[in-house]
Amino acid sequence: MNDTGADAAADSSSDEAVAAASTPTGLSRRGLLGLAIGGGVAGLAVGAGAGLSGGVALGRARAAEDALAAYDFFGGHQAGITTPVQDHLHFASFDMMPRTDRDDLVSLLQDWTYAASRMTQGLDVSATGAVGGSAEEPPDDTGEAQGLPASGLTITIGFGPGLFENEDGDRYGIAASRPAALVRLPAFLGDDLDPQASHGDLCIQACADDPQVAVHAIRNLSRIAFGRARLRWSQLGFGKTSRTTAAQATPRNLFGFKDGTANILADDTAALDAHVWVADSDEPAWMAGGSYLVARKIAMLIETWDRVRLSEQDTIIGRDKGEGAPLSGGTELTEPDFSGSAIDANAHVRLAHPDQNDGIRILRRGYNYVDGNNDLGRLDAGLFFLSYQRDPAQFITLQRRLSTDLMNEYLRHVGSGIWAIPRGATAGSYIGAELFA
Amino acid sequence: MNDTGADAAADSSSDEAVAAASTPTGLSRRGLLGLAIGGGVAGLAVGAGAGLSGGVALGRARAAEDALAAYDFFGGHQAGITTPVQDHLHFASFDMMPRTDRDDLVSLLQDWTYAASRMTQGLDVSATGAVGGSAEEPPDDTGEAQGLPASGLTITIGFGPGLFENEDGDRYGIAASRPAALVRLPAFLGDDLDPQASHGDLCIQACADDPQVAVHAIRNLSRIAFGRARLRWSQLGFGKTSRTTAAQATPRNLFGFKDGTANILADDTAALDAHVWVADSDEPAWMAGGSYLVARKIAMLIETWDRVRLSEQDTIIGRDKGEGAPLSGGTELTEPDFSGSAIDANAHVRLAHPDQNDGIRILRRGYNYVDGNNDLGRLDAGLFFLSYQRDPAQFITLQRRLSTDLMNEYLRHVGSGIWAIPRGATAGSYIGAELFA
Repeated sequence: MNDTGADAAADSSSDEAVAAASTPTGLSRRGLLGLAIGGGVAGLAVGAGAGLSGGVALGRARAAEDALAAYDFFGGHQAGITTPVQDHLHFASFDMMPRTDRDDLVSLLQDWTYAASRMTQGLDVSATGAVGGSAEEPPDDTGEAQGLPASGLTITIGFGPGLFENEDGDRYGIAASRPAALVRLPAFLGDDLDPQASHGDLCIQACADDPQVAVHAIRNLSRIAFGRARLRWSQLGFGKTSRTTAAQATPRNLFGFKDGTANILADDTAALDAHVWVADSDEPAWMAGGSYLVARKIAMLIETWDRVRLSEQDTIIGRDKGEGAPLSGGTELTEPDFSGSAIDANAHVRLAHPDQNDGIRILRRGYNYVDGNNDLGRLDAGLFFLSYQRDPAQFITLQRRLSTDLMNEYLRHVGSGIWAIPRGATAGSYIGAELFA
Repeated sequence: MNDTGADAAADSSSDEAVAAASTPTGLSRRGLLGLAIGGGVAGLAVGAGAGLSGGVALGRARAAEDALAAYDFFGGHQAGITTPVQDHLHFASFDMMPRTDRDDLVSLLQDWTYAASRMTQGLDVSATGAVGGSAEEPPDDTGEAQGLPASGLTITIGFGPGLFENEDGDRYGIAASRPAALVRLPAFLGDDLDPQASHGDLCIQACADDPQVAVHAIRNLSRIAFGRARLRWSQLGFGKTSRTTAAQATPRNLFGFKDGTANILADDTAALDAHVWVADSDEPAWMAGGSYLVARKIAMLIETWDRVRLSEQDTIIGRDKGEGAPLSGGTELTEPDFSGSAIDANAHVRLAHPDQNDGIRILRRGYNYVDGNNDLGRLDAGLFFLSYQRDPAQFITLQRRLSTDLMNEYLRHVGSGIWAIPRGATAGSYIGAELFA
């Protein structure tokens, strides 16, 4: 993540543009303050034009070397939803700080847009970056991704229910724009939620093929948020448990089964429009092109599971462990036949299948996690479930349907969150601009 | 990780060999019990010849596709020390269970050898594996690595001081063979050790280029240990902070600096013999060809560090952040010149340098870690430091020398462990056999 001399030269203008910036062509003064809190902001040169055009051009140059390495942050939909699932996740939930106002929120989203548009192209968070600024200031960028390519980084940003209204009221003047669909999730059977791994005013999903790149993104976006929003909880994940393109082999979860065989794929435009993207005809209008994200941290009692006989494991899932074929026969991609008794009435594959749920589908994008182990010597491990849907009611219906899932004996839902995912930002604008228009 | 039909056929003999096994040609009854605790052991066919020869042959077949993907578990030195540093780490510390005896320990090491020799070749932990056994038994292998290549997996096993003697005495009849060098580490300035992230009778370092493969290894080795040893603590790491070959670019730690520039490289045989491998002339004889491992979990106060001005960061490290060159001039690989004042008297690079420590060197193999965040919204992140040395006194001397390191203000040592790393196992034998001979 090094800027070229050309890029640095383009940024040598004064920082007057920062004060006037209403589009993310640089970090706001607040964002710079977060980066420079140990010193002053004087001397930090972040000029108009520093970020987007230069960054994108550099990104293209690098993309020529590795065609799949860099995804544009800007676009009709946010990246990181149908993007081919990367190998690593760092997910972060944030709460807005007390006594912040609408301008704080808007400037934060502008700063995040600016930084995200650069980091997704393999650049530092600002033009001065990790080592290009004054030696008498803290660097803008924390530096651990220097020399690393973009690594397929996507940054996906969401708005939680509390952002629109919480016990402090309508802090940001957006309560009237809250989507009716953005409900607080109801309690589900088996919930054992830790508030410290749940909820949040804002979320950022950072996915990359190099964990250091994903961590660098969350760390620097947290830093930029200084004084405006604070990290509430975060989660690292690996070994994706879903696929979004047919070219990706179906990965395995920590129960050893293939997971996500029937996921919605990125080229299935009709299914995406029906099940994932908020339509122009949906309310509110600012959510058109967006989606809703549900995150569930699902602890898996793997030591208990590992002692279940193979035939019973197959019965619980409704597929065979080796091939992943439905127990009604065929191969992995054969449609399950629910007419007979080959697949148990409470097998996971039956309860979750669209045919058993009025055609409801969701786009899954989860990751495995291991957070060390507990005092009993058991791995603290499981699935960090992420799903995107046009309406959270899809998830709620499916999750209620799973209340009799045979698999529940081996699961504990310990974290939960829901966020509205606005459409992608337009180049020159910022994420969520339609909400504040 | 699927066996071929040929391999499975070779294993169709009776399980009589299991009871007689004194070399790891299959899992012991105790190991099988760990795997099958939910059912019985009857029907599990693990025959002589199941593991090593078949596994290695299959590994070679796969290695033809990806020459660097599979490292042999057997050899004069254990793999995972000078092996080119892989991208991911799962490190685990174990305590022996109460009332275990010498036979338990030996059978555990035999079982670990057998399973490690297979998994490092991209195979399941046993010939029946994840789906090849009886459907009426729990599978031998947990299955999440099915379909994944060996991914450069290395498994490195060590013996802690407590294995030789602890408050329960000489449990395994090996106290007299304890290396004098295997001391319990003294307290160092700045230590704030969590017993739940420190020490342990045994350790396993699993490194791989796919985190799911490293996690699979630790999970299955933990499972095999059932009734004999229990996971005490474990740590995931990523984004290696050292290199062991000149071809590897020097990676960056979470302070954003290049780390491990002056590490001992795998092709520097003279330095390895002088500083890393226990010599034939060293005591005790069973440690010849081995090494000593020190692990330190070092929390980095990254939010505080990020507010330090660039010039001060450079001063603390003694190198410039961009290039990694010593402040005395030159490029990354230029030797630092300590004669002038360009490098502060307490800069990290000065205090840690061999020239300032009577030529002492160690082989570093650490990883970055991020374990979520704390209640203040700060990332719980740092360096999981791993070093190999011929004598732990090398580490102790260096660590004491670092007591005035300017960097200490931004570090907390929260975990610590030391283990004797025996020589590599000979094919047909098991890890540590020389200790029990």
